Amino acid sequence: MSKEFLREGERLDDLQLKGLSIIQDPGRFCFGIDAVLLSSYARVNPGEQVLDLCCGNGAIALLLAGKSEASRICGLEIQEESADMARRSVALNHLEDRMEITTGDLKEAASYYAPSSFQVITCNPPYMAAGNGKASTADARAIARHELLCDFSDVARAVKKLLVPGGRFYLVHRPHRLVDIFASLRENKIEPKRMKLVQPYADKEPTMVLLECVRGGRPQLTVEPPLIVYEKPGVYTPELLTYYYE
Amino acid sequence: MSKEFLREGERLDDLQLKGLSIIQDPGRFCFGIDAVLLSSYARVNPGEQVLDLCCGNGAIALLLAGKSEASRICGLEIQEESADMARRSVALNHLEDRMEITTGDLKEAASYYAPSSFQVITCNPPYMAAGNGKASTADARAIARHELLCDFSDVARAVKKLLVPGGRFYLVHRPHRLVDIFASLRENKIEPKRMKLVQPYADKEPTMVLLECVRGGRPQLTVEPPLIVYEKPGVYTPELLTYYYE
Repeated sequence: MSKEFLREGERLDDLQLKGLSIIQDPGRFCFGIDAVLLSSYARVNPGEQVLDLCCGNGAIALLLAGKSEASRICGLEIQEESADMARRSVALNHLEDRMEITTGDLKEAASYYAPSSFQVITCNPPYMAAGNGKASTADARAIARHELLCDFSDVARAVKKLLVPGGRFYLVHRPHRLVDIFASLRENKIEPKRMKLVQPYADKEPTMVLLECVRGGRPQLTVEPPLIVYEKPGVYTPELLTYYYE
Repeated sequence: MSKEFLREGERLDDLQLKGLSIIQDPGRFCFGIDAVLLSSYARVNPGEQVLDLCCGNGAIALLLAGKSEASRICGLEIQEESADMARRSVALNHLEDRMEITTGDLKEAASYYAPSSFQVITCNPPYMAAGNGKASTADARAIARHELLCDFSDVARAVKKLLVPGGRFYLVHRPHRLVDIFASLRENKIEPKRMKLVQPYADKEPTMVLLECVRGGRPQLTVEPPLIVYEKPGVYTPELLTYYYE
């Protein structure tokens, strides 16, 4: 039945969540642990409206549809091929009544959505600053990984426009960008309130950071204990598993 | 012999480092684990000139004198009683040729020292933002703990003036202030380059943060694995012990 939704080179992956599936193209960009962690780190209350910026093939938006009782989940993606995959995954999962995927540039986000119209915004943005040699070829993967078409300050500005005052912004990023991230957020009056570093092992440097921010929030950051991914090679920690199965 | 250096209410504590001692007044402010951690986290090369801002009774400056081969270690402290204790500790340890304690306000730091005259600056500043009820009584302990006479942006501005370009600034602070700290540092072109969170136990929230910053440094932060203080109640971890005895 689902074959009709797939194009050449694509495959259908099980999201292991309430029977949901996602269309992915291994030649482009497949979602990873960061998307799963962000979808669990985000607190979404029943009836809230959620926007996922840089939504790619819709992994975070779909995971949030399965994990939360949000009334509406929108996704914005600049690459039409990725947005199209996300749209077909929404249809495949019969989620058209709650989800909507828009092709567009987050620098123009205010032209797609009403101002201050979301209680929650999530984003798994490109991690790497532009200007590294590797990113000179602007293919689909490079666009998803490097700040070629937008940088983090563009993300922060979009969040400022679209989030209600007091609304929450959740992101996953790389720890080496923390100073840039905090600077852009504060410039846009989006205050980081809760942070969790993610370490592959207990004695290794963190490779990811999860953040909860509040538009107009008071300065005061809670740094949580780190999330450790592996107990030993191939064996997830109990805490990590709660991010997958809660 | 050392009795002559002590005033009423003061005591002499062993720094457990090359026979060094420190004069402390339990009624004022005694140094803690944060000072010890900062003095080890700071990398000081032989022959470098070091300034400790908010030096209190001189604990960090004395520890650096024992741990490094810095050619000169200066301390600046606004409270004359604390600076006087630090000065007597310097004399007691026969360190007058390498150390100098100045009583003064760090907002006026440029009038005490030549611009760009230190390769390394350290600071264990007051942690708590002013305006909390507790801090209304401006006694010696409150001044050391709350931002009553200076705030972190004053510290960052002093560092900008006194550190050589490329020089290192080390500080210890509370994690809940991280966003404020990063914002003030970047405003003054002092880039956080290395960060270590300090957790009492492996599964507890960090209670301290150690930072290495570089004046004019390129944006890129290395977040190190956290330092865990206790293996179990009363038993330090091996890593923590390296901070005391290296």
